[in-house]
Amino acid sequence: MKLLKERILEEGRVLPGNILKVDSFLNHRVDPLLFQEMAKEFRKRFGVEEIDKVLTIEVSGIAPAYAVALEYGVPMVFGKKTDSKTLGDECYTTEIHSFTKGNSYTAKMDSHLLNEGDRVLLIDDFLANGRALTGLIDLAEQANAEILGIGICIEKSFQKGGDLIRKTGYPLESLARIKSLENETVEFL
Amino acid sequence: MKLLKERILEEGRVLPGNILKVDSFLNHRVDPLLFQEMAKEFRKRFGVEEIDKVLTIEVSGIAPAYAVALEYGVPMVFGKKTDSKTLGDECYTTEIHSFTKGNSYTAKMDSHLLNEGDRVLLIDDFLANGRALTGLIDLAEQANAEILGIGICIEKSFQKGGDLIRKTGYPLESLARIKSLENETVEFL
Repeated sequence: MKLLKERILEEGRVLPGNILKVDSFLNHRVDPLLFQEMAKEFRKRFGVEEIDKVLTIEVSGIAPAYAVALEYGVPMVFGKKTDSKTLGDECYTTEIHSFTKGNSYTAKMDSHLLNEGDRVLLIDDFLANGRALTGLIDLAEQANAEILGIGICIEKSFQKGGDLIRKTGYPLESLARIKSLENETVEFL
Repeated sequence: MKLLKERILEEGRVLPGNILKVDSFLNHRVDPLLFQEMAKEFRKRFGVEEIDKVLTIEVSGIAPAYAVALEYGVPMVFGKKTDSKTLGDECYTTEIHSFTKGNSYTAKMDSHLLNEGDRVLLIDDFLANGRALTGLIDLAEQANAEILGIGICIEKSFQKGGDLIRKTGYPLESLARIKSLENETVEFL
């Protein structure tokens, strides 16, 4: 997606360890006008019109998932990483290892908020090693929801998450696929 | 706001400890159509048109703040509770005590993402003891941003946060003010 790639080139910074810093518009400061354009692009690429819910995992998946949910006019549900007093016992749970943060966490989704047969899209900001996304797929499959598509804003194609997710057979759409971040330079696929 | 109050009465559940569970539309599953109506209502109530940014703190402030940012067509910035590899050293930081979770945390906002003189609205889902919001005010004041209004979806008026925030002199708008949750019943102010 041209608009997103331009923003990455204009504002993104490559940090040591193959980290792409895009916090000025994607995951710390958020540009809702860009996000709604991304949502339209996801809708066009998936070619799916009837959706029941959009799913993601907190934190940085919330804004892009909200944008897609608004585009379709359906609810968004996010997997929770932290316990809260309002989260009951009846939850789908999955273990996720974060390579970025070097730890593991349990993501939970209240089983009343996602139903069998729900037609869902899964949205996240980044796809690198794919662990957050396989966790989200696990939550959706536990609910026997129907996964119609997976949408990613930025895929680091030089890491193994893309292959991992494509092997599941679910349609995967990444709006910007990065081939390399070597020499502190963003190179798209 | 009638629409929000109706949803609270229809779907909200009162849990022991004066906890209002509204996770089916507000802070676990999110209804973007309701949120965009809330955003319009905030805009009407504040009577402010020229805004540079909308600020909040992760996690459950992100969706309502995004809705308001989209309504105005400006960026949203959220204070981060967890460290990340892309968060540099140049941050505004504030300590926040959470009565709900019984712990304290540091919220951080990259100082490049919020500028002196920025005209900002602060948005959050709940106002109870007011600690998250006073932390957010602290971050905005450190940046010398101009706080034009504070918008809350649900205020628990029987707790002390409302008074605490009103004493700051910043315009506070709460879309639903709850007087009592006694006898497992929601009573609005």
